[in-house]
Amino acid sequence: MKTVIIGGGAAGTGAAGGAKAANPQNEVVVYTSFEDIAYSPCGIPFVHGKEIDSFQRLFLAAKEDYVRAGIDIHYSTTVTGIDLNAKTIQVTGEGTVTWDRLVIATGFEYADPGVPGGDLDGLYYVKDIRAAEQWDKRLDDVKRAVVVEASPLGVEMITALAHRGIETHVVDPNPWTLGDTADPDIVAPVEKDWTDMGVQLHFNTKLEAFLGTGSVTGVRTSGGDLPADLVVVATHKRPNNTLAAAAGIKLGSTGGIIVGNDMATYVAGVWAAGDCIEVVHGVSQVPLQGLTGSHAYAQGKVAGFNAGGGRKVYSPVYVPWGMLAANQMIGGVSFGETLAVSLGIPHIMGVANGISRARYYPGVQPVRVKLLGEPNSHKLIGAQMVGGEGIKERADFLAVCVRRGITLEDLATMENVYSPAIGALNEPIALAAQNALENVGRG
Amino acid sequence: MKTVIIGGGAAGTGAAGGAKAANPQNEVVVYTSFEDIAYSPCGIPFVHGKEIDSFQRLFLAAKEDYVRAGIDIHYSTTVTGIDLNAKTIQVTGEGTVTWDRLVIATGFEYADPGVPGGDLDGLYYVKDIRAAEQWDKRLDDVKRAVVVEASPLGVEMITALAHRGIETHVVDPNPWTLGDTADPDIVAPVEKDWTDMGVQLHFNTKLEAFLGTGSVTGVRTSGGDLPADLVVVATHKRPNNTLAAAAGIKLGSTGGIIVGNDMATYVAGVWAAGDCIEVVHGVSQVPLQGLTGSHAYAQGKVAGFNAGGGRKVYSPVYVPWGMLAANQMIGGVSFGETLAVSLGIPHIMGVANGISRARYYPGVQPVRVKLLGEPNSHKLIGAQMVGGEGIKERADFLAVCVRRGITLEDLATMENVYSPAIGALNEPIALAAQNALENVGRG
Repeated sequence: MKTVIIGGGAAGTGAAGGAKAANPQNEVVVYTSFEDIAYSPCGIPFVHGKEIDSFQRLFLAAKEDYVRAGIDIHYSTTVTGIDLNAKTIQVTGEGTVTWDRLVIATGFEYADPGVPGGDLDGLYYVKDIRAAEQWDKRLDDVKRAVVVEASPLGVEMITALAHRGIETHVVDPNPWTLGDTADPDIVAPVEKDWTDMGVQLHFNTKLEAFLGTGSVTGVRTSGGDLPADLVVVATHKRPNNTLAAAAGIKLGSTGGIIVGNDMATYVAGVWAAGDCIEVVHGVSQVPLQGLTGSHAYAQGKVAGFNAGGGRKVYSPVYVPWGMLAANQMIGGVSFGETLAVSLGIPHIMGVANGISRARYYPGVQPVRVKLLGEPNSHKLIGAQMVGGEGIKERADFLAVCVRRGITLEDLATMENVYSPAIGALNEPIALAAQNALENVGRG
Repeated sequence: MKTVIIGGGAAGTGAAGGAKAANPQNEVVVYTSFEDIAYSPCGIPFVHGKEIDSFQRLFLAAKEDYVRAGIDIHYSTTVTGIDLNAKTIQVTGEGTVTWDRLVIATGFEYADPGVPGGDLDGLYYVKDIRAAEQWDKRLDDVKRAVVVEASPLGVEMITALAHRGIETHVVDPNPWTLGDTADPDIVAPVEKDWTDMGVQLHFNTKLEAFLGTGSVTGVRTSGGDLPADLVVVATHKRPNNTLAAAAGIKLGSTGGIIVGNDMATYVAGVWAAGDCIEVVHGVSQVPLQGLTGSHAYAQGKVAGFNAGGGRKVYSPVYVPWGMLAANQMIGGVSFGETLAVSLGIPHIMGVANGISRARYYPGVQPVRVKLLGEPNSHKLIGAQMVGGEGIKERADFLAVCVRRGITLEDLATMENVYSPAIGALNEPIALAAQNALENVGRG
């Protein structure tokens, strides 16, 4: 049985491995528009910021590893059409290619900012590692840069450019960083760090045009013009579904392909995974799109395994997230206060400012935790955090808690490791849960 | 109502705060044999190791804070007897003192090694901060030291002495470090670090005598004599229950006071908390004694709150633990493979060697996770870990999982934060859970 996968990102490579895992006899062919496979695009901002010394280090596996695994990858190829009835795709230079099973993993594209000047040179959409290598050389000569939107990628690029000594301006229509996801108190320490690093923040500010002729020389905003040698366009991620839509595959309200918990589309024999699909949020039941590489990889594995004749299920998501932002780690699960209020989700809340180690131990860092609970059951429904260490592990933990209905009472009475070098007497999660219960008179 | 608390450690101070929290009108009196209160004895090894620059930093609160809180602390006092019928205690220098409610928080003492020479000078039992300050000065002149038992305190002292440049020998009857708790594969990296630091490990070796006249000059062991200027006696912690036993308060099989989930003893009006009690292990139902300062403090709060007229419950324990050991963080929950085998607890198991950040990000560290599940339900029942970061947070997480019946399937499909600087594509806990399910053909 021949499984064809369109896309060589995290979802596509996950699907390729999944299809082979289901049955090593499966023929697996991947079409990718890139020259490479199995590298970590998430690492690109950190090479620009000089935390990582070479793009070469971002490669996860060599091309030969895929050859050895019996996965046939067609690099630098463009798929121009899908025919669901004939069970074929059209590939530039190869013509008509047949499949028994198809996995669509076409990923994302950045939302078009929709302003004049979008064709100027000097607009950097961070995505492809080969392009990033070229952009990295240009960064040496950049004096002033604008980052359009303090999105997750924007946050990493702002920090990278500032580390690089470039005068960096942020233009964002929201009132604060990660305005779609994060609460203002969570990102406040990040914004303070950036200000200390010389970054200039222009929030509540709309992008109106890219300025220049040939090359970009600045941006026009609702707050005035800003000169710039380079503009990083970090608008939000949209599903890249031109092919799927043209083939008649059903898309949801987010523009992502609708799939079942087996990652199957509404069309028999066709699966999809990664940034081109939408998945259901476990608490709000709202469809979500554009999650992380970890989600894409896990979805790809399920899609590929099922396409290859296996049977696996992908669960609803609770979306633990986290990142390094300036000198802070920020993160959370599900949603925070801002989103809960704007979606009208009833909740109770607790906050604690704790620490990561014994107060006297070197390297001790603040850890601020906000927990949201369902008002009647007190089940955890969301969390946000900012601190100096342990944010990713706590976000993973709290995502399992939300998924499995763990209550604020459970967290308020949780045991915790106390050992001066690695943990404080009081775990900040427990303190935040205790605070939430006190706030409703149940502490 | 007058609440008297015997003991000024973590349990005693927790109880004092708890009694005041239950009702600010409560009269609260604490008797402690030490000159100080509210310092962190857990920090002592790290001052000896020079990670922390002064004993002064270990104090958590000033004596005036307790005065302001209305808690009456009698320092450097010795309680010599408890009369349960008369509701009094005998205090040296104060005579007979009455109470309405009593909280016993008399802590632990190190198990007597039971060998000749126990009265020599130069045997260091780490406990009191004032004594530690004196010992610290002596350490400057110590060339060779022996640590008796690689217990939790022993582990920290071995590392501290080695950091201090002292030739350090470890004598332990067990075959490996933390032989009562930890699995050999978990502590192997710790033992390798110590060996690299010049520490000499004498496992499977019994202490037979402290040698010397007046001052210790070495130890006699089943493997021969070892010269030493100083011996750290880090035998296991025993409940310090001479007073309670003499008063007729019921002790359990561990020697710890038996309490209910409200921390009440079998005697009306008397509560107990901390290292002098025993509590039930949530999985094995075995009584445990000698847990951590965090446990003692939490138990103390419950005991004091209930003694003060409130009503709180302390849950069975699942004992997340963790510590810095040489250059590793080690930790776990409940029990590991060794203890499960020796207690005859049926289990399935999975292991994974993961990483803490993206493989290419500076500071990435190995994280080894072992998970034990109940064979039928696949509920998590234990875990052990060793790695470079995030061990305490994972131990806290897994303790909640054990307590709330989270399964290996839940963990195998958990979402995780993937962001190069703070988390790897695959969470080691998820990988270990997947491995456990593969091992039983359910992967």
